[in-house]
Amino acid sequence: MMPDGGQSSQDSRRGRGGRNQRRESRAQGGTGVHRPYIVRGIPTCDILSEESLARIEATAARILAEIGIELREDAEAMRLYREAGAEVTETAPEVWRLKFEPGMLHEILKTAPAEFTQHARNPANNVRIGGRNVVFAPSYGSPFVMDLDRGRRYGTIEDFRNFVKLAQSSPWLHHSGGTVCEPTDVAVNKRHLDMVYAHIRYSDRGFLGSITAPERAADSVEMCRILFGADFTDQNCVIMGNFNTTSPLVLDGVTTAGIRAYAAANQGSIHLPFLLGGAVAPLTIPGMVAQGLAESMASCALTQLVRPGAPAILASFFSSMSLRSGSPTFGTPEPALGSLVMGQLARRLNLPLRCAGNFCTSKLPDGQAMQQSMMSMMSAVQGGANYILHSAGFLDGLLSMSYEKLVMDTDMCGALHAYLDGMTVDDDTLAFDALAELGPGQHLFSTQHTLRHYETAYWESALDDNQPWETWDEQGGLDYAQRANARWKKLLAEYEAPPLDQATDEALLDFIARRKGEVPDMWY
Amino acid sequence: MMPDGGQSSQDSRRGRGGRNQRRESRAQGGTGVHRPYIVRGIPTCDILSEESLARIEATAARILAEIGIELREDAEAMRLYREAGAEVTETAPEVWRLKFEPGMLHEILKTAPAEFTQHARNPANNVRIGGRNVVFAPSYGSPFVMDLDRGRRYGTIEDFRNFVKLAQSSPWLHHSGGTVCEPTDVAVNKRHLDMVYAHIRYSDRGFLGSITAPERAADSVEMCRILFGADFTDQNCVIMGNFNTTSPLVLDGVTTAGIRAYAAANQGSIHLPFLLGGAVAPLTIPGMVAQGLAESMASCALTQLVRPGAPAILASFFSSMSLRSGSPTFGTPEPALGSLVMGQLARRLNLPLRCAGNFCTSKLPDGQAMQQSMMSMMSAVQGGANYILHSAGFLDGLLSMSYEKLVMDTDMCGALHAYLDGMTVDDDTLAFDALAELGPGQHLFSTQHTLRHYETAYWESALDDNQPWETWDEQGGLDYAQRANARWKKLLAEYEAPPLDQATDEALLDFIARRKGEVPDMWY
Repeated sequence: MMPDGGQSSQDSRRGRGGRNQRRESRAQGGTGVHRPYIVRGIPTCDILSEESLARIEATAARILAEIGIELREDAEAMRLYREAGAEVTETAPEVWRLKFEPGMLHEILKTAPAEFTQHARNPANNVRIGGRNVVFAPSYGSPFVMDLDRGRRYGTIEDFRNFVKLAQSSPWLHHSGGTVCEPTDVAVNKRHLDMVYAHIRYSDRGFLGSITAPERAADSVEMCRILFGADFTDQNCVIMGNFNTTSPLVLDGVTTAGIRAYAAANQGSIHLPFLLGGAVAPLTIPGMVAQGLAESMASCALTQLVRPGAPAILASFFSSMSLRSGSPTFGTPEPALGSLVMGQLARRLNLPLRCAGNFCTSKLPDGQAMQQSMMSMMSAVQGGANYILHSAGFLDGLLSMSYEKLVMDTDMCGALHAYLDGMTVDDDTLAFDALAELGPGQHLFSTQHTLRHYETAYWESALDDNQPWETWDEQGGLDYAQRANARWKKLLAEYEAPPLDQATDEALLDFIARRKGEVPDMWY
Repeated sequence: MMPDGGQSSQDSRRGRGGRNQRRESRAQGGTGVHRPYIVRGIPTCDILSEESLARIEATAARILAEIGIELREDAEAMRLYREAGAEVTETAPEVWRLKFEPGMLHEILKTAPAEFTQHARNPANNVRIGGRNVVFAPSYGSPFVMDLDRGRRYGTIEDFRNFVKLAQSSPWLHHSGGTVCEPTDVAVNKRHLDMVYAHIRYSDRGFLGSITAPERAADSVEMCRILFGADFTDQNCVIMGNFNTTSPLVLDGVTTAGIRAYAAANQGSIHLPFLLGGAVAPLTIPGMVAQGLAESMASCALTQLVRPGAPAILASFFSSMSLRSGSPTFGTPEPALGSLVMGQLARRLNLPLRCAGNFCTSKLPDGQAMQQSMMSMMSAVQGGANYILHSAGFLDGLLSMSYEKLVMDTDMCGALHAYLDGMTVDDDTLAFDALAELGPGQHLFSTQHTLRHYETAYWESALDDNQPWETWDEQGGLDYAQRANARWKKLLAEYEAPPLDQATDEALLDFIARRKGEVPDMWY
């Protein structure tokens, strides 16, 4: 039920290759060595009692049984839910209300894997999603991009490629994400081809495909068949789609058709209610969580009706609201608590979780941005989220993808590697000998213990300034955002694309050219 | 043993007057209503197993028994420790090595209160320290002050008064702190009088007194006798001193004489090892924690030898080190983990804990400052620290007290009130009716549940910008630091001193004038 919560001796477990890889990272000047993903070495932060969790689950069950979920314009999904036992009522043409007996969705979800591998084209970058594993991916879905030099502007395919490259450059991300920004200079009905191609070409990590239309989902999977082979793709998760419910309590047919496409191809899918309290969900967190659980379970279940065993990720995105403006507020304490609870619920369901990320509402990569991000991101990692989208770049309530914030956030992701590693308590780390060697009043700089550990004891930021004030001042007195500005430019300048088999590349480009040629451009 | 850890139903407990006071805060425009202190509504974040904790305790016991603590130049303290059973060896003139049998300090510390009240001159601001209580106090000890207009400069008594006023203005701090900055324009041997007076005059909350010399500690207590009356002061904690050990493993006589002065007067004391890994402690966190525990226990024990029952606070200040420069690094993940463990250990000892705070090394109130602060501060509140010094204003590794950061940090402290409140899971917050009222696809803006809760559901920042980008841009596009700059000026302009009895005020001023006249100024 609670694989990693509460009081246990799990503090002695460590992430894959933790210390050794960190030692190696120091040899490379502190920039860090990529780990394919994190295996958490500390327990989750569980704030609710069994009794309270059971009450939230009971409310979710009641929502599903008594209010139900509205399904729009997907007769095939309706048929699948009905055959599985849902009570279906047509409330308008092509609109159905689905009601689920308590326990029915739990039963259906039993075939969904608690943990699965998403394969990357570089097998060293395969990620395990679920259980004690944590995967960081960059932010997703911003129409604008932003940097200190050019300010805010609509995203382009060039920005998209830059963000894929910057994410690939970071040792502290594990996954290339999906719509790292909207490439608004490419036709709406064709941009998915360029986006998927950019992930394949400029990254060798796992990525997300298109979900904005069923045929775009199919194209995304088809490009993976070219990359991985059709048989391998049929038997393994090589791509995932991130699907939003239409809260409150609606699944629209474009979404469900996309979910069906990914599941039929045995590919992964994320089932995300985006809940703004007071707008599309109750303001109070327990109610928001209950609704989110109900929606995500109903959406996840569809995958198992299409293809039992297809990977599905439970998900939540909680947001509070400004009393004064009605605007969403991110990085606030109440949604952070909600995310911790969502972690507890996902473990009880035995499903992987996507939750929270580096959320903020700030318009600039300033103190507000980082304070809010940290509040939100800590809830994700402490709550036990397994796949953390929006781990880097998130600015202005997701409206902007920020070049500077991306490198700030990836640096923070590095710190979170060390945090999630926890600590090993043994004779060496307890270091009695280090104190005994010279005794009271004597500095430990030169002790054997210090010499043995100083290169590996601490995570080292690539971006923080820790120098004496005078040195910092002499070097120009730059603030964090200015240093981040220099850093992303350096990373882009030094970026080298991972090798891609030339025949595969040509096949992908041929596919894209053919698909683009089949239909005229659409811009909405 | 673990009053608030692990799986429990404590999530239904709430801070004193939580909801009602928060409602009131909305009526006052979101600035918040002061609570005297927080009573945590969420469990602590416990990362180590019983077995690992026992190993750390055993190492601390071994340090105390086999290496021991060096005591310098306080024969009276030496006598007290020896009479209590310590093995004492004189290793040089006026230098003694104290060794403690395992279990001896635990036994001595049994008379120290697990929880106590520090009285404020306004009884509504009395704070409970220990147990589930959390008290926030501003930063302590910076020689420099900093603001965006004038940059970094040495602190003055005017800055000191300003910081006391700004702290008093915040509803989210609970205590006035101590040396909020060094007033370097007042003679070293007299500034304690002006500092204590500023706390009494410009705040009506609890505060810390001087510890830099035994006679200054005595003056601090004497001023409290004038303020609270001698009998009340003898029977109640009305002031505390913050004492540092001289790590590794040394107690110097100025410190122990100060500790004895506070304890003899039945006043509180904080026992803080400031541990920089690799310099004055092992680099590895378990060893650093074991040493910190040993030092703080030895220091705390002295209070009970002087006056059993005198309040004593276990404390820790952990810092990592930059590999490249050897500089201390703050707000990093490893010390954050150490602080969580220190919380577990303090609860096993049944002593109140001071731990961590809004630590950072950034020179400016920028993204680095707030990200590091949040990492550190979260460890304090999640680990169950009871008295959190350095909750506001900390910049540049404690070298600067920042006007802007102070208001940023106090705003964050507001968020942490909501975070520590946790959530109540009941029919009202589960909000089934809110969803049922309009059903799928309908916004909840106008539901009864939303109307009933919208004023109180969420903490509201006084400093964050949550507006649409266009509005923010039209209003000047200010960043977080610029808004903080405007805010502290506004708060200082609007500040009103809490009333102070005139006779008391005159008596205090007379005392100060007399004490200042007795000795010449000293500037070192």
